[in-house]
Amino acid sequence: GCDLLTQERSKTTFGVHDLSTFLYGELYLERQERLLALLENEPAFNKSNRYFKGRTERIAGALRKDHALVKLSQKHKWTPEEFMQAEALIDEAGPFGLHRGMFMPTLASQSTDEQIEKFLKPAMRYEIIGCYAQTELGHGSNVQGIETTATYIPETDEFEIHTPYLTASKWWIGGLGKAANHAVVMARLKTAGKDYGPHAFVVPIRSMEDHTLLPGVMAGDIGPKFGYNTTDNGCMWFDHYRVPRISLLAKHSSIKPGSGEYVKPPNDKLSYGTMVLVRASLVGAARQGMAKAVTIATRYSAIRRQFVDKDSPKMLGDQIIETSVIDYSMQQYRLFPIIASAYACFFTSKEMMRLYYLNMKNMASGDFSMLADVHASSSGLKSLTTTMAAAAIEECRRACGGHGFSSFSGLPLMLQDYVPNVTWEGDNYMITQQTGRYLFKSFRDLVAKRASGKFNASLINNPTLAYLNTYLDNPDLKCPATSAAQFHNLEIQLAAYGHRAAHLVADIVNALDVEKRTWNSMLVEIYNVSVAHCQFILVQNFILGIRGEMPQPEGVAVVELSPQAKEALTDLSDLFALHMIHKQPGEFLTSGYLNAKQVSLIGKAVMDVMENKIRPNAVGFVDAFAFPDFLLNSALGRYDGKVYETYTEMATREPLNQMEVMEGYETYIKPFTNPQGKKGNTMQARL
Amino acid sequence: GCDLLTQERSKTTFGVHDLSTFLYGELYLERQERLLALLENEPAFNKSNRYFKGRTERIAGALRKDHALVKLSQKHKWTPEEFMQAEALIDEAGPFGLHRGMFMPTLASQSTDEQIEKFLKPAMRYEIIGCYAQTELGHGSNVQGIETTATYIPETDEFEIHTPYLTASKWWIGGLGKAANHAVVMARLKTAGKDYGPHAFVVPIRSMEDHTLLPGVMAGDIGPKFGYNTTDNGCMWFDHYRVPRISLLAKHSSIKPGSGEYVKPPNDKLSYGTMVLVRASLVGAARQGMAKAVTIATRYSAIRRQFVDKDSPKMLGDQIIETSVIDYSMQQYRLFPIIASAYACFFTSKEMMRLYYLNMKNMASGDFSMLADVHASSSGLKSLTTTMAAAAIEECRRACGGHGFSSFSGLPLMLQDYVPNVTWEGDNYMITQQTGRYLFKSFRDLVAKRASGKFNASLINNPTLAYLNTYLDNPDLKCPATSAAQFHNLEIQLAAYGHRAAHLVADIVNALDVEKRTWNSMLVEIYNVSVAHCQFILVQNFILGIRGEMPQPEGVAVVELSPQAKEALTDLSDLFALHMIHKQPGEFLTSGYLNAKQVSLIGKAVMDVMENKIRPNAVGFVDAFAFPDFLLNSALGRYDGKVYETYTEMATREPLNQMEVMEGYETYIKPFTNPQGKKGNTMQARL
Ligand SMILES: Cc1cc2nc3c(=O)[nH]c(=O)nc-3n(C[C@H](O)[C@H](O)[C@H](O)COP(=O)(O)OP(=O)(O)OC[C@H]3O[C@@H](n4cnc5c(N)ncnc54)[C@H](O)[C@@H]3O)c2cc1C
Ligand SMILES: Cc1cc2nc3c(=O)[nH]c(=O)nc-3n(C[C@H](O)[C@H](O)[C@H](O)COP(=O)(O)OP(=O)(O)OC[C@H]3O[C@@H](n4cnc5c(N)ncnc54)[C@H](O)[C@@H]3O)c2cc1C
Repeated sequence: GCDLLTQERSKTTFGVHDLSTFLYGELYLERQERLLALLENEPAFNKSNRYFKGRTERIAGALRKDHALVKLSQKHKWTPEEFMQAEALIDEAGPFGLHRGMFMPTLASQSTDEQIEKFLKPAMRYEIIGCYAQTELGHGSNVQGIETTATYIPETDEFEIHTPYLTASKWWIGGLGKAANHAVVMARLKTAGKDYGPHAFVVPIRSMEDHTLLPGVMAGDIGPKFGYNTTDNGCMWFDHYRVPRISLLAKHSSIKPGSGEYVKPPNDKLSYGTMVLVRASLVGAARQGMAKAVTIATRYSAIRRQFVDKDSPKMLGDQIIETSVIDYSMQQYRLFPIIASAYACFFTSKEMMRLYYLNMKNMASGDFSMLADVHASSSGLKSLTTTMAAAAIEECRRACGGHGFSSFSGLPLMLQDYVPNVTWEGDNYMITQQTGRYLFKSFRDLVAKRASGKFNASLINNPTLAYLNTYLDNPDLKCPATSAAQFHNLEIQLAAYGHRAAHLVADIVNALDVEKRTWNSMLVEIYNVSVAHCQFILVQNFILGIRGEMPQPEGVAVVELSPQAKEALTDLSDLFALHMIHKQPGEFLTSGYLNAKQVSLIGKAVMDVMENKIRPNAVGFVDAFAFPDFLLNSALGRYDGKVYETYTEMATREPLNQMEVMEGYETYIKPFTNPQGKKGNTMQARL
Repeated sequence: GCDLLTQERSKTTFGVHDLSTFLYGELYLERQERLLALLENEPAFNKSNRYFKGRTERIAGALRKDHALVKLSQKHKWTPEEFMQAEALIDEAGPFGLHRGMFMPTLASQSTDEQIEKFLKPAMRYEIIGCYAQTELGHGSNVQGIETTATYIPETDEFEIHTPYLTASKWWIGGLGKAANHAVVMARLKTAGKDYGPHAFVVPIRSMEDHTLLPGVMAGDIGPKFGYNTTDNGCMWFDHYRVPRISLLAKHSSIKPGSGEYVKPPNDKLSYGTMVLVRASLVGAARQGMAKAVTIATRYSAIRRQFVDKDSPKMLGDQIIETSVIDYSMQQYRLFPIIASAYACFFTSKEMMRLYYLNMKNMASGDFSMLADVHASSSGLKSLTTTMAAAAIEECRRACGGHGFSSFSGLPLMLQDYVPNVTWEGDNYMITQQTGRYLFKSFRDLVAKRASGKFNASLINNPTLAYLNTYLDNPDLKCPATSAAQFHNLEIQLAAYGHRAAHLVADIVNALDVEKRTWNSMLVEIYNVSVAHCQFILVQNFILGIRGEMPQPEGVAVVELSPQAKEALTDLSDLFALHMIHKQPGEFLTSGYLNAKQVSLIGKAVMDVMENKIRPNAVGFVDAFAFPDFLLNSALGRYDGKVYETYTEMATREPLNQMEVMEGYETYIKPFTNPQGKKGNTMQARL
């Protein structure tokens, strides 16, 4: 194991630490070392028994872990960045996760000054521990359809929160099951006889004295799940539960005391900002998920040997040895594009965060011009990259063969904990409609503008309009490449993605506007167009990012890529763009841009870049992600390659192995195998 | 919930019981009722706590269950069919699973008469409980590479079984961890200074007196896994462990006592028979997996309402209500092809079993002419259908939105327990090479025969050669269809699949034979050609099966399809064939057979058949699978549609809910929220 990885590492053409620094910056990497030293020494963060525990034990352990994390952060006065980095290294959801992830951010963005004092400040000290209760048994995707009511009672200046039907039960609320004593509750605000739809209320739910449920509130844990079992997702019912008026988070909209008159928010677009942030940050989480999984699978594939490749047998001295599975082209085709995707998501996630901050700044000064584009891209990218990451983790698991099925590979739990990302924060199929809607509107506007004669192409300042406009200039354009080598040209790749996305947009707009097809009948095409648009974005940002042509966020220093790392990343971007075409050429062909011959050339280009460019650097690329063994917690993915020893050692700790003869033998096996309790009949069995 | 399903059921155009009878036969359905009554009353089979347990408890429960199942089968003198049907209804792997699934079948096919008496007969009475120990830590796919040795010792007429390296540890062996007292061990037979490669030995491993490990054997459980956690997959090491000569299963090959001379098997093809059986039976298991998952997702999608579809709002009386998610075309596009795939696998699994028996009969009389085709198809179909089923179960899980993530949906555990099928019995990527090899050979032979002038097309008697020959007649053929309606023609569909598969075969043979590319460099294309070939088989059997034109196994009575059911199944077969083209049109386009316009027409045809033909019958199709609630164990998939009530009731039984205040509160929460132990400070929180 060890020698094999050393050998792999010696082949790397770039400085691994250079690339890591480009990805994370020196500061982050130093901090990782420092935090790691702390975390590895704290028993509450010990991962050695993680894979053996049932849910009840795991929840208890996660609470202990969350407690210890807060204590440690207080002791060392961690910044939010340090906290997040430590959390990522521990890599286990917990009962306080939503307190930090949703409860406090909601308070921060929707509280009045008074509410900041009353709620947010105690929450920051963990005196209040909160959760975010939006979803109900009957409504998740359709937030506007939630049924919990909050009726303003002028007489007492209170709201009465109530659960009118079983389907109005709050459900899935992380931290609510057992840990939280407060909740942000989304409920329909009713006042003066009118229903103003969902609004956020801060509501105490458990006693500050002894943590029992408050009268009028019923809550509990919703039970075991595919993954994410260390969080106490909960359910809750209100029975005419009264809270004071200050419970309504009132930065944007409020109620006049007494009259109960509703004061509208000045601009309802403001809330989109947060949604963009969450979705953009999931692009980063997708990168992290893919990168972790493919680190394990790539290292293991370099170590795992199976069969002799007869056409080019590997030798050790003068002996034929089996081939590392990473040398099989099929294994490369499964894993290398995942490495490339993780790097692709790195650039796009960076760009989305830059756009988020820029847009927030613009909106604060009343300029909403970026919002639609950023919101559409973040929705589509959330859908695409989380779908990619979930598939990637499972592909990596399978690429480890039988041992990928063992918990000790780290991959099963990783998949299970990752996969809610495809459902929460906007179901991946549902939210692509938002991306589609924006694309169609942009297209219609552009067509109208071009027709108006007052159109100036040089004023186009966003990439979506740019590719749509190029397409409209010549919808019948054909790709000029005639050799496999030409497809390594990044401009040619980008043009193909742009043309294909624009072609799909044009087709759908035609179906909707001319053929008058219904929106519902077009949902499959709408999903596909969102994918196409977002693949374009990923490809573009990858290319610009490597070239250093991506706009830099304000006040952030540029990190230069070494020429070797730049070349290696260019190979990855090349693979990223070409592999997706090769794997799903359909729309590129039906758009008319590529022909069958070209797709076959692309196939050759893909195989060529994988074998000759990526293969020598594969281990280097995953090493550059700089995930410590503590994070991966995987027998197969260890940095030092000691796969089989570690795996065996982990198995010896299985609880069933602590007794030689299993519980239940006397009752369930012996009656068959030795009903008379004969002594020494072993000999018979040994014949 | 209930009313909605009743309403759905009233729309079904065929008799659900008719279709169930066509699928299973009356006998099977009657037996199901009878068995169900027994199983539901046996506490060891109670599933109500299944989702709450950790691995240690689950293994203990599974052993109890396996014991009870054997007792019940003995009491009622079940036939093997009854046993298997009961097992499928209980639907949980257990420590005795491999005893029945691999240990006894291996003994049955490789034992001498003496070995049948000594091993198989006691095994049938569960006096011997066995497992099948082939895989090692270092070798799974490459069986020829295993390292455990069995050296013949002439002096004592014994074999010495030994584990020379860590990587030679037996690993993954189901039942070995704790339950088995014997193992079939695959070990390299060494005698008279020569290594004859892997052979099967029957070896006692635990004492018949008290179940302790025998001296010279070390074994234990390999620990927690992604799924399949109710089986004690184990590991084992031998330390110069001696067993008598009769341990070598000697029906086919043996050792002469004393001299140690090796007696070769008369024909080494015989062992392929069993492999065909196992792989063919996995096609049936894939059907079962898809059918179970899609039953849950389809019923739930009919009940789940989310959003109002503005173009065609649903009404209840004069009120607009939300749309059932099954009415969204995207949801249909995700689920209906899975229903169709389950039916497709039904026909092909039936056909593969017929071919298996026919081939065994032929081989017994020395005719091996079918073997290559049947082996190639069963390998490719194992790979394709298990990959499809694993993807289908996960898609169904996601199609249930958030609630699909809850264990109570039944889908998480179903996925986890199903998914080893993509890895065991031949890794899904690896075994397609076997299919490819056969296809290329067939193609080369056919080309040679055609060139020889002595070729008579009417003598072609297998579907593979038939489509290859049609292609060779005219490689440039184009699909004649010019309207969406024409694509509903099953012959046109089949021709497209045949042409595409043949085109891929021709391309690869050219690359290998003319361009001299290496086998390894072609693995991606080889995988794809196997998929294409097997999709052709699935489409063809679906069509022939509905038409009653599939050959009937000897001695099995024909069950007639009612005209209504026939029409409904034809819609499914139509969707099955068209959806796969629409989703992945690439190869159909690059083969030149279809053009972009036609793919777009196919898209229309798919949408049309889903909305107008499949939609009204969706619930009927899944009802016809006739899975009782006891089997599905799903809050979302209940026959009566009582989704939300059942789900809520299941959550109340979560262990965490048995105490109002969670364990750990005093230590990990209170120090933050109420460090001084103040009484009554609830008020502060309630403001
Ligand atoms: C682990 C986990 C943790 C969570 N934590 C929280 C939390 O802390 N707080 C909180 O408030 N919520 C939480 N949630 C809830 C989560 O936000 C919702 O489950 C999610 O939004 C999906 O909504 P749903 O379940 O209603 O899906 P549904 O909308 O019911 O989806 C069912 C199916 O219908 C389809 N569908 C729905 N609408 C359409 C449409 N218009 N067009 C086409 N198809 C459609 C979907 O694609 C899906 O296939 C959590 C969920 C999970 C799984
Ligand atoms: C739940 C479970 C139960 C099991 N039960 C048993 C049992 O009871 N008895 C028993 O003997 N075994 C059992 N097994 C073992 C199982 O048969 C093996 O795990 C399986 O055959 C895969 O082999 P592997 O792990 O060596 O995969 P590997 O061959 O190591 O696969 C690793 C990767 O290499 C790739 N690869 C390998 N060879 C090639 C090639 N030539 N070309 C291209 N790619 C290649 C694979 O596709 C895969 O991606 C069980 C496994 C599991 C998961």
